[in-house]
Amino acid sequence: MPKKQHNGSPAEVEAAFYDAMSRADVDALMALWADDEEIVCIQPNGLRLLGHRAIRESYEMLLEHGGVHIQPTQLHEMHNLMSAVHTVVEGTTVLRGDQGHLVATNVYLKTPKGWRIVAHHVSVAPGPTPSDTHSQVLH
Amino acid sequence: MPKKQHNGSPAEVEAAFYDAMSRADVDALMALWADDEEIVCIQPNGLRLLGHRAIRESYEMLLEHGGVHIQPTQLHEMHNLMSAVHTVVEGTTVLRGDQGHLVATNVYLKTPKGWRIVAHHVSVAPGPTPSDTHSQVLH
Repeated sequence: MPKKQHNGSPAEVEAAFYDAMSRADVDALMALWADDEEIVCIQPNGLRLLGHRAIRESYEMLLEHGGVHIQPTQLHEMHNLMSAVHTVVEGTTVLRGDQGHLVATNVYLKTPKGWRIVAHHVSVAPGPTPSDTHSQVLH
Repeated sequence: MPKKQHNGSPAEVEAAFYDAMSRADVDALMALWADDEEIVCIQPNGLRLLGHRAIRESYEMLLEHGGVHIQPTQLHEMHNLMSAVHTVVEGTTVLRGDQGHLVATNVYLKTPKGWRIVAHHVSVAPGPTPSDTHSQVLH
């Protein structure tokens, strides 16, 4: 049975993505990506993974011992009729205190099956998670 | 007089972007971004900059003492009629030897004025610049 989020908006796909990660559900996670071998994931360690197989295996390794809880906050978005670009600050218990925080860009394209992830780029940023978006803007 | 690259493809906009950076031409650089306050730039230090003013000021600081030479390689792209997502490995003399290399995601949307940058996310990756794309893919 198709999952509810498969016909959802980019925001719903994003919520389902972080939910699947928290449940270590790699099948649900991968179903949110476009059915396209050109999908790309840039990990916090800078490794660029291309295609379903490489991305799936990286999540299988990451989630081998259980879910990873990530709370996306401070969503900033741009979109047109066929694409959406989200940037979020990723609150996570994986990094603690002075280890920094994560910042992600998530790109969605509208496919024949609905909105799907085509790119996920995560960086490590120094310092604790900023309290709000404005603290990250120079002016 | 409108610049040639303003009606170019995403690849031409990308080439113009790195060219402007090498010439420290902030006006040319900023003209390649969408005329939209929602544009976003995530710097290698993890800072997320939103809007023209913050992004322009960061480039003014970066390029204050001259151009920064970046050679984008290993282009990987996805696109539909109205958007294009490029990831590239950024070869640069800013980082040396074991300081790592840079990986960028550049997102372009088709605007009434042509293809424009809407998001630029750069990460530092450890190790020297990989010699080709395949070295970055697990399989």
